[in-house]
Amino acid sequence: MSGPTPLRVAIAGLGTVGAGTVRLLASDPARLALRAGRPIELRAVSARDRGRDRGLALDGCRWVEDARELAFADDVDVVVELIGGADGIARELAAAALRRGKAVVTANKAMLARHGAELAALADEAAVPLAFEAAVAGGIPIVKSLREGLSGDAVQRVFGILNGTCNYILTVMRETGRDFADVLEEAQQLGYAEADPSFDVDGIDAAHKLALLAAIAFGGRPGFDAIHIEGIRHVSALDIEFAEELGYRIKLLGVARLTPSGLEQRLHPAMVRKDAPIARVDGVFNAVGVLADPVGLVMHEGRGAGAGPTASAVVADLVDIARGIRLPTFGVPSSALVDHPAAPMAAHEGCYYIRLMVLDQPGVLADVAAILRDQHVSIEALIQRARNPNQPVPIVLTSHQTTEAAMTAALTAIEALPTVIEPPRMIRIEPN
Amino acid sequence: MSGPTPLRVAIAGLGTVGAGTVRLLASDPARLALRAGRPIELRAVSARDRGRDRGLALDGCRWVEDARELAFADDVDVVVELIGGADGIARELAAAALRRGKAVVTANKAMLARHGAELAALADEAAVPLAFEAAVAGGIPIVKSLREGLSGDAVQRVFGILNGTCNYILTVMRETGRDFADVLEEAQQLGYAEADPSFDVDGIDAAHKLALLAAIAFGGRPGFDAIHIEGIRHVSALDIEFAEELGYRIKLLGVARLTPSGLEQRLHPAMVRKDAPIARVDGVFNAVGVLADPVGLVMHEGRGAGAGPTASAVVADLVDIARGIRLPTFGVPSSALVDHPAAPMAAHEGCYYIRLMVLDQPGVLADVAAILRDQHVSIEALIQRARNPNQPVPIVLTSHQTTEAAMTAALTAIEALPTVIEPPRMIRIEPN
Repeated sequence: MSGPTPLRVAIAGLGTVGAGTVRLLASDPARLALRAGRPIELRAVSARDRGRDRGLALDGCRWVEDARELAFADDVDVVVELIGGADGIARELAAAALRRGKAVVTANKAMLARHGAELAALADEAAVPLAFEAAVAGGIPIVKSLREGLSGDAVQRVFGILNGTCNYILTVMRETGRDFADVLEEAQQLGYAEADPSFDVDGIDAAHKLALLAAIAFGGRPGFDAIHIEGIRHVSALDIEFAEELGYRIKLLGVARLTPSGLEQRLHPAMVRKDAPIARVDGVFNAVGVLADPVGLVMHEGRGAGAGPTASAVVADLVDIARGIRLPTFGVPSSALVDHPAAPMAAHEGCYYIRLMVLDQPGVLADVAAILRDQHVSIEALIQRARNPNQPVPIVLTSHQTTEAAMTAALTAIEALPTVIEPPRMIRIEPN
Repeated sequence: MSGPTPLRVAIAGLGTVGAGTVRLLASDPARLALRAGRPIELRAVSARDRGRDRGLALDGCRWVEDARELAFADDVDVVVELIGGADGIARELAAAALRRGKAVVTANKAMLARHGAELAALADEAAVPLAFEAAVAGGIPIVKSLREGLSGDAVQRVFGILNGTCNYILTVMRETGRDFADVLEEAQQLGYAEADPSFDVDGIDAAHKLALLAAIAFGGRPGFDAIHIEGIRHVSALDIEFAEELGYRIKLLGVARLTPSGLEQRLHPAMVRKDAPIARVDGVFNAVGVLADPVGLVMHEGRGAGAGPTASAVVADLVDIARGIRLPTFGVPSSALVDHPAAPMAAHEGCYYIRLMVLDQPGVLADVAAILRDQHVSIEALIQRARNPNQPVPIVLTSHQTTEAAMTAALTAIEALPTVIEPPRMIRIEPN
């Protein structure tokens, strides 16, 4: 008697995640087959350096020199793309595999954030799944939760801590009072940050993930270019200290919501109240919150990166595919994905934290207060540190709800004051 | 041109959740059809009191007097069972519907905790889904997360705050210092607790949910009778105060894990470190943590009850069914569900909090310490309050890791001491 047909898998890319996936598939195949309804078998792999010893048992598994060949392999049902990069081989491979009627599983947030709609259309045409749980917040099954678990809900807001490196740096800065550059250097030595940290600390990586979450949440084409992105390089130890004093934590937050002026997608350092669930997500952990109707707020928290968590997501996608589950990539058919107009940041409404470095002279505060009043910005709290006539002193204030346009205008005017000796620092305050 | 075939739904039970589901299905049918791939149409309902005005638009929808008839309705693909109760009409309806090849969606944790394996077998035989996202932690898509999102992982431990009423009471007790009876009465007046609160405060409701989580996590038949259950009636304001002093919060926790002596399933008040994510889940919120390999710890948090969150779960299940998703009820075929032997509580290993009320006489502490030493229980911390020779005083201690058997023997001996004037209070301490 022959058993059920196995699901035949090829993996392109044997870096940390690829190797982790190979190991997880091999760790308990019987348990996996029970969950998947049939065996999941690794048939082929491709990676740049065949000679490198990865400690993987790849017996009975073909080695393919050019990953793109996997799209044409007759003995493969699913191509797992773990090469990375928005374009190049990854994109060629994914598109070719989908066109050939093969399912694709990918952890490639950059590719999907930029070409997701186009690839989703190819998947729909071929009636095969394009799965990407591993692309967003690693071990947190947030794609599934948002796309399927909350499919009955109307999402109002999706937000999250989407980059573990940044969260680690901000956490250490808060705990030790040290400065960004110092903590980044240590993180690089510990392997928590890349030699070129730009992708992480400038917010690009997190913004890719935000584009995907927003696409699912609001049934839109992923729109990476429309995201307002600020990284964490300018977060200072001083601002973290003031945040604590005011009852806030500073997190690099991605936020997407539909507003009357369009889809707002922002990725920037934000102050969140200390008692908010997301404020307590520290270190390399990621978290994603979904505020939706009628479910209310649902929070998810877990490891966002690393071999284990990401392999867990890849394999869960493979189990789904083995089970015959095929959903539209972003939850609705690609032909129905909306091109949401981007809400301009000037239209953003919220509360703000501002820190000014001023010369301690009479009338400074009066000047600042007058400028804010002229922009109809009302002050919620104000901290002025110990006076020191010969040194610049910080003035910190938080605003009530206002528009980004008003705040920007006010900051431009404030910066022009002769007593204000540095560009003002502004950090948006997020509601819980 | 005719559109796609609608999914035809019947709802049995129009209480809070049933009415919420009817409303959600009617709120934005076009969006739902886009997510579901086809329209979801309500064809029939059944509830006890037809005359009652529920404010629902039920035009074009048949009213069926006996809910069990819905199992035989030719114009119905899915029966949504929201009647409740482990046996009786709910169970008859679910079994009959599955036998007739109809999908079943249910929020009935009692029924599934007791008869889940048998109903899962009926679902497998008929090759139809039996879905129950609404039965566990309402709005949190934890069934999906555990069964599908973490299908590649080996679960080590699943634990959670599974009853909002208890969590609300414990939260108010901590915040106000008031006693259980007092806060319960207020919760009843506010509608957060039932007139007969036993189901909630004695842990039955949460234990039902734990049985279902454990079944999915460990591929076992739901085993409600094997769960060790303690409610929160005996949690005192004094213990909450000492917990705070020791750096803990008291939560009603459900915990399931596979141990060398079998499946451990416990539902009892537990102390968790204040900085643990689960410690900060307050009020009516639920939370479920899954510790698994290789993903690590994944936390989920959201509203556990109420019309909106529960309807959200019911409708998400309906969307899955409309999409043709059919998974084995507990993640593996019912024929493969294991009958895990129950680990005896005596074999449980952990740390303990103990509070004794003693007469303040010389030698009391020596007697207590000697008993603990004889049971090889080592003390981690000890608090003895201000001395008062004429009044009983509390002695509080926490233990290092020990077995429940040793702790029980020690407590029996301690209770027999003439200077110990109340039965000792014991609360287990959970690791993060």
